[in-house]
Amino acid sequence: AKAHADTSGSHTDWLTLNIGGRLFTTTRSTLVTKEPESMLAHMFREKDVWGNKQDERGAYLIDRSPEYFEPILNYLRHGQLILNDGINLLGVLEEARFFGIEQLAEQLEVVIKNSHPPEDHSPIS
Amino acid sequence: AKAHADTSGSHTDWLTLNIGGRLFTTTRSTLVTKEPESMLAHMFREKDVWGNKQDERGAYLIDRSPEYFEPILNYLRHGQLILNDGINLLGVLEEARFFGIEQLAEQLEVVIKNSHPPEDHSPIS
Amino acid sequence: AKAHADTSGSHTDWLTLNIGGRLFTTTRSTLVTKEPESMLAHMFREKDVWGNKQDERGAYLIDRSPEYFEPILNYLRHGQLILNDGINLLGVLEEARFFGIEQLAEQLEVVIKNSHPPEDHSPIS
Amino acid sequence: AKAHADTSGSHTDWLTLNIGGRLFTTTRSTLVTKEPESMLAHMFREKDVWGNKQDERGAYLIDRSPEYFEPILNYLRHGQLILNDGINLLGVLEEARFFGIEQLAEQLEVVIKNSHPPEDHSPIS
Amino acid sequence: AKAHADTSGSHTDWLTLNIGGRLFTTTRSTLVTKEPESMLAHMFREKDVWGNKQDERGAYLIDRSPEYFEPILNYLRHGQLILNDGINLLGVLEEARFFGIEQLAEQLEVVIKNSHPPEDHSPIS
Repeated sequence: AKAHADTSGSHTDWLTLNIGGRLFTTTRSTLVTKEPESMLAHMFREKDVWGNKQDERGAYLIDRSPEYFEPILNYLRHGQLILNDGINLLGVLEEARFFGIEQLAEQLEVVIKNSHPPEDHSPIS
Repeated sequence: AKAHADTSGSHTDWLTLNIGGRLFTTTRSTLVTKEPESMLAHMFREKDVWGNKQDERGAYLIDRSPEYFEPILNYLRHGQLILNDGINLLGVLEEARFFGIEQLAEQLEVVIKNSHPPEDHSPIS
Repeated sequence: AKAHADTSGSHTDWLTLNIGGRLFTTTRSTLVTKEPESMLAHMFREKDVWGNKQDERGAYLIDRSPEYFEPILNYLRHGQLILNDGINLLGVLEEARFFGIEQLAEQLEVVIKNSHPPEDHSPIS
Repeated sequence: AKAHADTSGSHTDWLTLNIGGRLFTTTRSTLVTKEPESMLAHMFREKDVWGNKQDERGAYLIDRSPEYFEPILNYLRHGQLILNDGINLLGVLEEARFFGIEQLAEQLEVVIKNSHPPEDHSPIS
Repeated sequence: AKAHADTSGSHTDWLTLNIGGRLFTTTRSTLVTKEPESMLAHMFREKDVWGNKQDERGAYLIDRSPEYFEPILNYLRHGQLILNDGINLLGVLEEARFFGIEQLAEQLEVVIKNSHPPEDHSPIS
């Protein structure tokens, strides 16, 4: 029933984000529902306040990393934090913090803490 | 003979999916044949019921992860579950469940169970 | 001399393949010369028989995995099987078999056999 | 407040870079603010002097590696050096030096020095 | 000064290569300067002799692997051989030889020889 609702037109408001030059297609409900107090949710609920810019195809311009945004968008879609091997967790954390997605940022901080031994202070993973 | 049939016009119904902003080109028969009771099969067999949205190029919009959908589409094409090193199995499982592809989800659960020692409860692989 | 011939117009017949949504540009001679008895060679030598479909840009539609097709096309270009770390050999084998490229499929089977210990029967690498 | 300012129209000057064939969308303020004395900052603050070329879509042409530019652009966006596993640090250093981003180049040199044992002089990581 | 010259219009001749379906944007001087006796340099200095074909966007068609060409183009840009983990060195060597870039091919042969123990004769890395 949930899956049916997600794809059957209950949200008619599709939009495309241009994150640093890569296009992501999603729905407004994905951006505003999971973490309604995030900056990202505010940006797409209160468009006029935020003055979001659009490119010539109508995609909303955001000057951030597309690579590290990808797992964040997946998290907003289904609530799971899912990351491939080799991706730098600090990159995802940086984007989670930028977009104000607090619960995800906290979850990432726990994962990062557990994945490094305490004596390792290297700036990159 | 099978390969010949697959490419010789026995299915004339090509379609493009826009999964989260990435385009996948396939045929309707690939989507509906392998697991006919899946939600994905229903979506493309009973289009009017599901009210699938299309983008300006005519590609069907689905608000999910393109990266984790890719092995699922390959599975529907040839029946094999084939995954590269480094991909997070939980990501593929999440999509298999969303699209209601039950046999693949079960197969993935077995692979995931066998790839983790029982004491490992980390949320990411 | 060989390289010169390859690029100086001795084959004027460029074509683009749309493999599962990704575009590959190559020449007809690449597709039909290296393994002339493969299904792929037949598809592009006897177009009318096979009834290949083209997309709106004129690219030939093939409903298969682009990722695992890439090393196959390189093999047809220069005769070497070259694979990056992390790619699943079974995925390349599946495509080699689908396109009926027998010598490559046999070479892949040897590589796969040598890369797995005999007691390992896992479905994914 | 900072994030709000970054997305609310305080910089209206979006631009696209065509780095070696891949498009990156960003703002002029990202390119000129973080390291104002870099060559990159000069190129986009003093356009007429530098005679930047644009492609047919209006993207600024730069004949360099897109892959190794990506972490540099992220650094200019948020000040963190964040790199995935497997990327060659010397590639990022080469681009940091080309664009004259001195603080980042120095940071990279430290990371490279610490990641190689002193007796290792191999040209590739 | 060098960087300035590279971007200030001293070479006005930008061109795009369509290597196997992927687009690379660069300048004629990059292709002909670093190794002037290579086949690639000849192809772009003596266009009429070579009869290079162009696609409908004006990109020069070359029927080779885009993935393994990428480090070669970077080498022509700045003279460094820089490779990420996991890339197959034999793939880059194959392209270096095809394009007749002799100094790079020799450098690659040394790296390959040093990276394999002498008793290892496997066709793939």
